[in-house]
Amino acid sequence: MQQIFHEIQVNTEGQGLYDFTNKTTSWLNKQKIYNGILNINILHTSASLIIQENADPDVLYDIKNFFNKLVPMDNKLYKHTTEGKDDMPSHIKSALTNNQLTLSIKNKKLMLGTWQGLYLFEHRIEKHTRILSHHFIGD
Amino acid sequence: MQQIFHEIQVNTEGQGLYDFTNKTTSWLNKQKIYNGILNINILHTSASLIIQENADPDVLYDIKNFFNKLVPMDNKLYKHTTEGKDDMPSHIKSALTNNQLTLSIKNKKLMLGTWQGLYLFEHRIEKHTRILSHHFIGD
Amino acid sequence: MQQIFHEIQVNTEGQGLYDFTNKTTSWLNKQKIYNGILNINILHTSASLIIQENADPDVLYDIKNFFNKLVPMDNKLYKHTTEGKDDMPSHIKSALTNNQLTLSIKNKKLMLGTWQGLYLFEHRIEKHTRILSHHFIGD
Repeated sequence: MQQIFHEIQVNTEGQGLYDFTNKTTSWLNKQKIYNGILNINILHTSASLIIQENADPDVLYDIKNFFNKLVPMDNKLYKHTTEGKDDMPSHIKSALTNNQLTLSIKNKKLMLGTWQGLYLFEHRIEKHTRILSHHFIGD
Repeated sequence: MQQIFHEIQVNTEGQGLYDFTNKTTSWLNKQKIYNGILNINILHTSASLIIQENADPDVLYDIKNFFNKLVPMDNKLYKHTTEGKDDMPSHIKSALTNNQLTLSIKNKKLMLGTWQGLYLFEHRIEKHTRILSHHFIGD
Repeated sequence: MQQIFHEIQVNTEGQGLYDFTNKTTSWLNKQKIYNGILNINILHTSASLIIQENADPDVLYDIKNFFNKLVPMDNKLYKHTTEGKDDMPSHIKSALTNNQLTLSIKNKKLMLGTWQGLYLFEHRIEKHTRILSHHFIGD
């Protein structure tokens, strides 16, 4: 059994879903791995991770829009307001989605459905550099 | 360390929670495993996975009902409408729940609480065949 | 490869977020481990697990408050009401957050962002003793 650690950087420019599937798979393809688990963690609390449909960009728009309506950027609703109107909603949206994805690799291939992509869900309105820890454990 | 891959099929007949705990444990019982991690992924973006109470069917009804009220099947709310009124809400409900469960196995036994069951949460209204990838890594 | 199982107990006194990061890391520090995966499961369906900001207590208040507004403790909304007005909302809040966290350990250190803490999210209003299964697999 071997373990490999890696970090992938995603630069975000405002709220929305950023597909990082290719960054992950092109790194995986360079490793000498066959079968195992890939644990991806986002080391931030105002952006999160989701697996979503990668076919129609409207899906990504609708998801962003739904979460903005569900968790309004309205400081009157929150006590924690010092970091901007988008900060507390970001923490809540993170709680509603995922901080981490645990994926399987079989025969050198990341197991995802045909229509599934890996997305970073940015909840802040300003530019950010996000770090995604990648940890492979397997053969 | 060994790794075992398996697929479990769940046939769904409309929205709701489908208990697949027995399918998973009866497969596990046939394997020569002792301790390890079981990573379960659903390879679809319009159905998801949750761990829920397995005692009272009303709990399952209330969960389905809550999510239908939270994410209405109303095409006026979404841009992605070509696949039916239940499709975009399905993607959102998947984002709000889980695409994957990572469970522990100890002394040949899946570690779940007394009242916990494994459920596929179907978000589409028509019949579907859902594939759940099972990946065991351990001893 | 080795595997270690452990249980951590968290005593809760009503709804809210309980930081158990120190309980987890002080246990980890006593183990002879270097790199691996730590799988944490909550063996209950009316409390859940989230990773959240550990700096401002107002964040924790706002999260609790948001979920109480999103999932009202109002028996008229649910069929499952026999266990109290907070029980069905607890199951729904669990479905909206996580039953389990899968974390990476690198060079003996739990990989978390600077502002990230591990929280048990208690959804019941009475006192409870919650068991968190910890399972390490690695070297």
